[in-house]
Amino acid sequence: MTGSRTHIATSDATSITVRGKDLCEDLIGRHSFTDMIYFLSVGRMPTPPEARVLDACLVTLMEHGWTPTSIITRLAADSVPDDVQVAIAAGLLSVGPVFAGTMEGCAELLVEGVESGEDPDAYCKRVAEEYVSAKRPVPGFGHRLHKPDDPRAVTLLEVAGENGITGRYVDLLRRLSREVDAARGGRHLTINATGAIAALFLEIGIPLKAGRGLAVVSRAGGLLGHVVEEFAQPSARTIWQLTREGIPYSDPQETSHD
Amino acid sequence: MTGSRTHIATSDATSITVRGKDLCEDLIGRHSFTDMIYFLSVGRMPTPPEARVLDACLVTLMEHGWTPTSIITRLAADSVPDDVQVAIAAGLLSVGPVFAGTMEGCAELLVEGVESGEDPDAYCKRVAEEYVSAKRPVPGFGHRLHKPDDPRAVTLLEVAGENGITGRYVDLLRRLSREVDAARGGRHLTINATGAIAALFLEIGIPLKAGRGLAVVSRAGGLLGHVVEEFAQPSARTIWQLTREGIPYSDPQETSHD
Amino acid sequence: MTGSRTHIATSDATSITVRGKDLCEDLIGRHSFTDMIYFLSVGRMPTPPEARVLDACLVTLMEHGWTPTSIITRLAADSVPDDVQVAIAAGLLSVGPVFAGTMEGCAELLVEGVESGEDPDAYCKRVAEEYVSAKRPVPGFGHRLHKPDDPRAVTLLEVAGENGITGRYVDLLRRLSREVDAARGGRHLTINATGAIAALFLEIGIPLKAGRGLAVVSRAGGLLGHVVEEFAQPSARTIWQLTREGIPYSDPQETSHD
Amino acid sequence: MTGSRTHIATSDATSITVRGKDLCEDLIGRHSFTDMIYFLSVGRMPTPPEARVLDACLVTLMEHGWTPTSIITRLAADSVPDDVQVAIAAGLLSVGPVFAGTMEGCAELLVEGVESGEDPDAYCKRVAEEYVSAKRPVPGFGHRLHKPDDPRAVTLLEVAGENGITGRYVDLLRRLSREVDAARGGRHLTINATGAIAALFLEIGIPLKAGRGLAVVSRAGGLLGHVVEEFAQPSARTIWQLTREGIPYSDPQETSHD
Repeated sequence: MTGSRTHIATSDATSITVRGKDLCEDLIGRHSFTDMIYFLSVGRMPTPPEARVLDACLVTLMEHGWTPTSIITRLAADSVPDDVQVAIAAGLLSVGPVFAGTMEGCAELLVEGVESGEDPDAYCKRVAEEYVSAKRPVPGFGHRLHKPDDPRAVTLLEVAGENGITGRYVDLLRRLSREVDAARGGRHLTINATGAIAALFLEIGIPLKAGRGLAVVSRAGGLLGHVVEEFAQPSARTIWQLTREGIPYSDPQETSHD
Repeated sequence: MTGSRTHIATSDATSITVRGKDLCEDLIGRHSFTDMIYFLSVGRMPTPPEARVLDACLVTLMEHGWTPTSIITRLAADSVPDDVQVAIAAGLLSVGPVFAGTMEGCAELLVEGVESGEDPDAYCKRVAEEYVSAKRPVPGFGHRLHKPDDPRAVTLLEVAGENGITGRYVDLLRRLSREVDAARGGRHLTINATGAIAALFLEIGIPLKAGRGLAVVSRAGGLLGHVVEEFAQPSARTIWQLTREGIPYSDPQETSHD
Repeated sequence: MTGSRTHIATSDATSITVRGKDLCEDLIGRHSFTDMIYFLSVGRMPTPPEARVLDACLVTLMEHGWTPTSIITRLAADSVPDDVQVAIAAGLLSVGPVFAGTMEGCAELLVEGVESGEDPDAYCKRVAEEYVSAKRPVPGFGHRLHKPDDPRAVTLLEVAGENGITGRYVDLLRRLSREVDAARGGRHLTINATGAIAALFLEIGIPLKAGRGLAVVSRAGGLLGHVVEEFAQPSARTIWQLTREGIPYSDPQETSHD
Repeated sequence: MTGSRTHIATSDATSITVRGKDLCEDLIGRHSFTDMIYFLSVGRMPTPPEARVLDACLVTLMEHGWTPTSIITRLAADSVPDDVQVAIAAGLLSVGPVFAGTMEGCAELLVEGVESGEDPDAYCKRVAEEYVSAKRPVPGFGHRLHKPDDPRAVTLLEVAGENGITGRYVDLLRRLSREVDAARGGRHLTINATGAIAALFLEIGIPLKAGRGLAVVSRAGGLLGHVVEEFAQPSARTIWQLTREGIPYSDPQETSHD
């Protein structure tokens, strides 16, 4: 007897129980995969609007074409073709601070603004000016490719609005957006997909720590598509060849100054 | 120019395209995460009944309480708390041949039976007798704990039936079940969850190689629940302590005969 | 032509070149694995004393019995028995900030002390008092089990001394040790293995970022031992059973206060 | 009390015991990392010739320039820069059946030949003819790039010979080589590095299952070199760019015939 408990699942000869519900009676055939992801992360079933917004976020994060995660998965699927979990897991390892961290940074800004009790516009003005004057990227804003606006952020906030999912976090994100533009002398910087998702996860009650986890689950679905394509129409050997040819070897002494 | 192509995704300044569809116009807010998983694995959107059956399968595979995958994820979440993708990926690595392979084995039996053109009952009788006489486990049948029937298999086949998803594979699975019981002298052996899912994946057009991948995506959702619980109510240090105390060290020479 | 280059390796029909040396002429049979690890991390071959100290550090970090990394590897080896790289990699993922981070924290303290140009004793006194008064653990000091002294630290510093590997970092570590004891009112706190290794890696010219990587390589060797034992004398199923029995399920509503 | 035991390691306040030896008294400073890898895999310390041959094999397997494993590690190091164990583990996952499996296949041929008691030349002739007539690659023979001979195999067998490590497995490998050439009508096919290593691991008593594990440990050392180079002189973003440009997107309908 250790005193430790789990509330996640148990089973006996005739039933499986998941967080207090009977898997076969209450869950299979009655709830979507998205409902269950929410249920296991948050501890209660989502309302239909919450589930629709979570679906929109998960759909958004699944796929971005060639990224480090998808390239890794393609290479690993070619090397370990019979254990597809290895290829998916290898890719997921890179859903890390560089690529998912801005979502967390934006969520922290929004939580701090709401919890501080400070006047929202004053908070946003102060934050925007701090980041812009320090030439630091504002988490949740800007995109290398998508200009003037990241179309995913626009659509996500529309979907949320249609489902009545608006509140203090979305409101604060919009105010922050205005202040960021103002601090940049009127040059517009888009809210990006991770910024919109940060606000929406907060609105639907996702714990901060679970946010990156949801990105991981979503990307797992996207990477499965890459595994399937790798088997039908391989890219891994081409990636290897492109790398060999594009990044040649040179003796270390030749560039001893680097 | 390598001649290689990808059909998965591309993007430009104002749009993202996923398998020929506009992510923001056609997908976000219009399709569920489950639809998209199917779309990326199969290459077309599922019909509503196909999506409901896929949802039922994904919900079934998410969670089984303490298993090697969930124990690994708990330990890794405690060791690398700030990169939750590491904990999820570490757990997913064990969704391997031992725990997911029976689904593939069962699917292969069903595909072979359908493609052989052999009389279904004759095929099932032959297969059942071969496995039973060789005392080999029939893939997709039997369960350590769930007796006389795995309730998940029962529910899954019901949900499929209600959605009109029945066909040659489900039919063959049911015939195989009768022949397995007959070959065992009438002692009933349940169709298990992986057997039912193998048949249903085939009915809804999931490629064989994608089956384990879907189990991986589903388990990613389940493991996220374990990560969230580990942060709220830790188990990892207890697992460590239980192992240290339960599996003590003894000098190798003391057991040199092993 | 990307402008990018690698200095690591290339090959042609009759030779392989590794960082400017001919693999078959200059390296195989002439240098140990330890030499090569140093060579690839640091860019030059170690002197014999440097190699002996690196060997001592690698031997020290290999094995600690039951730890999260070894438990994970055992479970994964049981689940994916035919791909041992999966079991080793799964375990290595947890050589993370919690278990390897103290080495890095200690190395940073030592580098800062040396680079600051501050009087060594004044620096150590200030640092020790800051940590002790804030009740923060001093990185590289203290051990849950090994009291009064971590025997590995004692041996490592002896081996280094016998090989003439002493210098500013080891000296600073010893001064810091005295000041830590003083700041604790004379209650002795051991230099631990990671503290000693941090100082020795600095003495032999290992880049800070490579330190954790060396721990990973060392642990890979230790985890291989666990894989081999798992196949000869399994523990994974017992760990699973201990967890199931030791951390039982309870319904979430029963403990809604947590 | 589970009845399970481990023989690997234990510790108390003043000592650490590894497989019956005192870590600080008997191992640190007295044995190399290579000795310890052997000790933990095989259960006894190697003789000096065994250690030299193991060193030669580990040095050989460390580095091959751009391979799937090193490309994956580079991409992951860029995405998760603060947790280098993630980059190394991600790369190691691909030390799988495609790239390490030929070593295992060759070892199985050699073990079978020795254990069969068949006349060595008759066995080799039969095996060589079977593979060649079926146009199957003989495991341990041939190399895409290294012709007429893989220089690593030549050097490894020389090093082994100089250390007196020759026996039935090396002898059988040489006979098999002659028969492979004969079965190909005199066209020479090289023993490759994995073939030579397979024979040498058998000669020095490495269990079959541990062979791939030793390749994993060796590659961990090589991948650390890639992590260090990635931080000093990045390639990951270039690999990404090369892939995006070299494998462009095309709509799935354009190639619906694939």
